Amino acid sequence: MVCAVIMAGGRGERFWPKSRAGRPKQFTDLTGRGNMLYLTYRRMAGLVPPERIFVVTGSDYEGITKESIPGLPAENIIIEPEGRNTAPCIGLAAAVLEKRFPGDVMVVVPADHLVGEEDKFTAILKTGVEIALATDGLVTMGIRPTRPETGYGYLKVGEQVEAGGLSGAYRVERFVEKPDPERARQFLEEGGYLWNSGIFIWRTPVILGAFKTHLPDIYEGLMELKEHLGTERYPFVLEKLYPGFDKVSIDYGIMEKADPVFMVPGDFSWDDVGTWQALERILDRDGDGNVLQGRVVALNTRNTIADAGRRLIALVGVEDLVVVDTDDITFICRKEETDMVRELLNELRRQKMEEYL
Amino acid sequence: MVCAVIMAGGRGERFWPKSRAGRPKQFTDLTGRGNMLYLTYRRMAGLVPPERIFVVTGSDYEGITKESIPGLPAENIIIEPEGRNTAPCIGLAAAVLEKRFPGDVMVVVPADHLVGEEDKFTAILKTGVEIALATDGLVTMGIRPTRPETGYGYLKVGEQVEAGGLSGAYRVERFVEKPDPERARQFLEEGGYLWNSGIFIWRTPVILGAFKTHLPDIYEGLMELKEHLGTERYPFVLEKLYPGFDKVSIDYGIMEKADPVFMVPGDFSWDDVGTWQALERILDRDGDGNVLQGRVVALNTRNTIADAGRRLIALVGVEDLVVVDTDDITFICRKEETDMVRELLNELRRQKMEEYL
Repeated sequence: MVCAVIMAGGRGERFWPKSRAGRPKQFTDLTGRGNMLYLTYRRMAGLVPPERIFVVTGSDYEGITKESIPGLPAENIIIEPEGRNTAPCIGLAAAVLEKRFPGDVMVVVPADHLVGEEDKFTAILKTGVEIALATDGLVTMGIRPTRPETGYGYLKVGEQVEAGGLSGAYRVERFVEKPDPERARQFLEEGGYLWNSGIFIWRTPVILGAFKTHLPDIYEGLMELKEHLGTERYPFVLEKLYPGFDKVSIDYGIMEKADPVFMVPGDFSWDDVGTWQALERILDRDGDGNVLQGRVVALNTRNTIADAGRRLIALVGVEDLVVVDTDDITFICRKEETDMVRELLNELRRQKMEEYL
Repeated sequence: MVCAVIMAGGRGERFWPKSRAGRPKQFTDLTGRGNMLYLTYRRMAGLVPPERIFVVTGSDYEGITKESIPGLPAENIIIEPEGRNTAPCIGLAAAVLEKRFPGDVMVVVPADHLVGEEDKFTAILKTGVEIALATDGLVTMGIRPTRPETGYGYLKVGEQVEAGGLSGAYRVERFVEKPDPERARQFLEEGGYLWNSGIFIWRTPVILGAFKTHLPDIYEGLMELKEHLGTERYPFVLEKLYPGFDKVSIDYGIMEKADPVFMVPGDFSWDDVGTWQALERILDRDGDGNVLQGRVVALNTRNTIADAGRRLIALVGVEDLVVVDTDDITFICRKEETDMVRELLNELRRQKMEEYL
C-alpha cells in the first residue's frame, strides 16, 4: 500500500506579503486556482485514500492546515517543532508512517508546486511506486525541461532500468546544482538532464535504512521518536530531539550519496512556483507582457506582475514591477530585486513592525 | 468692510485617488497639515469675521464643506449647480455678496493652496484691500518666484502705484501664460515677473461692473439671480441660468482685458499644490530624494513620492514613482506621467468602475 506525505512547513518568504509568517505561501491561493496545499492534497487523493495522506508542518500551522483541508484527520498532521530542512522532515514522516503502516511505500511531495496535467502526474507516480517496490530503491521524479531554467537543480539521466517488467525508470547518474544560463542552455540542447522536482518515492524501511547509513545521528533520534509515538511523552521527546537535528536537505544528506537512485521522468507541465516571476509562466500575460490578477487597470504599463487583493490597483507608465496588494500591505518591487524581500523583512524586524511579517 | 470668498468647487482629478469625485482635493489632507479647505478658512478668519467667510462649491459638496468647517453658517455656502470655471463662480459670489453686504470688498481665494507664513499673507491681503478701496480697481496678488516654475502663469510687474498714501502696489503690465523652461528662467533672472496666484481683491460693485463690460451675458444672468436671491424661486433660476454661463476663467474673461489692474506682491512661501510633484517642495525628502508619508519602508528606492494611508507600503528597488494607497485603491504611476491620470479616469468610466472615480 501507498501513503502520501505532503511537506508543508515552508515559510514562503519570497512571496511576502501574500505569504505571511502566519499564513505562508502553501496555505494561500497564489495563482487563482485555489489554496496550494488543498490542490496538492486533492492531487494525492487521486493516488491514495485520504486516510493515508499526511501533512508535515510547523505547530503554528496546524490550524490553517485543518482549515485548508477540511476533514483531514488530526492524526495525519505531523508537527515539526521547527523547520530543519527536508531531511529531518522526511525522516520524521518516515518514522510516523513506519509505525502506522509498516513497510508501505511513501510518496513525498512539496505542498507548493503547481501541476498542469494531473492524470499524467498520477500515472508517473504510480510507475514510481512500482519501481520503488520492484527495486527496493530510492526513486525521484525528474521533469522534462521546457526552457533553460537556472532556478532548478537537475538530474543527469543514467541508464534505463528494467525492474519487475517495467521500463519507465532510469538511474540518476548524478545530481546537478542550479546551473548558470550557459550550462542550462547546454542541458536543454544535449538532453539527458531533467529538473529535480523534489518529489520522492520509496518504501519507508528503505529510506529509514538510508538515514541509518548517511545520517546516522538523525536516524538514532528518529528511532527514539518512533518508540515514543502515541505516548504522552512523545511531544516532549520531539521538542527535545528535533531542534537538535542537522539542518540538511534530503538531496544533499541522502540522495546525492545513496546508490543506486532511480528516476521516473515526467513530461507534464509543472512549476515549483519559486518566485513571483513564476507567475509569468503560469498565468496569462496581456499584450504588454503584464500578468494582472484581480482588479487592475493598467495604462502604458509593461512586463509587470500585479495582484490586486480586494482593492483596485491602477498602474500608469510603469514597467518591470511586482505589485502585491494585501489587506494591510502594499508591496512594490523592481522585478529584478525580488530577492531583496529577505532584507526588507529584516528591516521590518529592526523597525519593530513584526505585525507585517 | 471685507468679505472672503473661498472657491472650493474643483474636482482635483490630478490628485486621484486621494482626491475622489465624492471628496475632491480641497476637502482632503494632502500634506499632513490638515483639511485644505479648513486651513484656508482659518487663514481667512485672520482677516475677516467668520460670518463674512463664504465658500462656493458644488451641490454634491455641501455636506463635506460643513464637515470641513464646523460651524460654517449654511447661508455662507454658495452652491454652483455645476463647475463653469472661475468667472461664473466669482460672479455668482459677487451677486450674493452684493445682496448681503452691498458695496463691500471681496477677497477671493482658492481653497487648495498652501501658505507658509500666514502673518505676511494676511498683511499683504490687507494692503490689497486698501488698494482696492483707494483705487476702486481690480487687484490681484503676485507671488515672488523662487524657482523657474513652468506650471504657473506670471504677472509682468508695471509701474508702482501711489493710492491713498499707499505704495505697496503695482500695475499689472500684462498676464503671461505658463512659460517654457527657458522663458521661466529668464523671468527669474530678469525679475519683474511674479507668479499669478489666483487670489483677487476688489469691491463687489467694481467686479460686477467688470462683468457688465467684459462678460455681459453672464452679467445679465447674475443680475437675474440676484433679484431672486432669498426667494423660493432662486434654486430654480440658478439651475436654469448657471449651466448656460460660458466656461471661462476670471483671468481670461476679465483680468486680461480690464485696465487698470493692480497687483500686491507677496513674498511668503506659497504653493498651489497643483500636482503630486508639489509634495517634493512642500514636504521633507529623505537622503534618497523620497517623500514618504505614513507607514512606508523603502529599500534601494529613490525620488519616489509615497502616501501610505492606513496600510504599510513596502518599496524595493524603485525610482521616480508616485505611490498612493487609499482604502480601496492603490495607485502607482511613473512620476513623469501623472498627467495621464485623466486618461485613467476615462478608462475607469469605460470599464464601468465609477465607484473608483
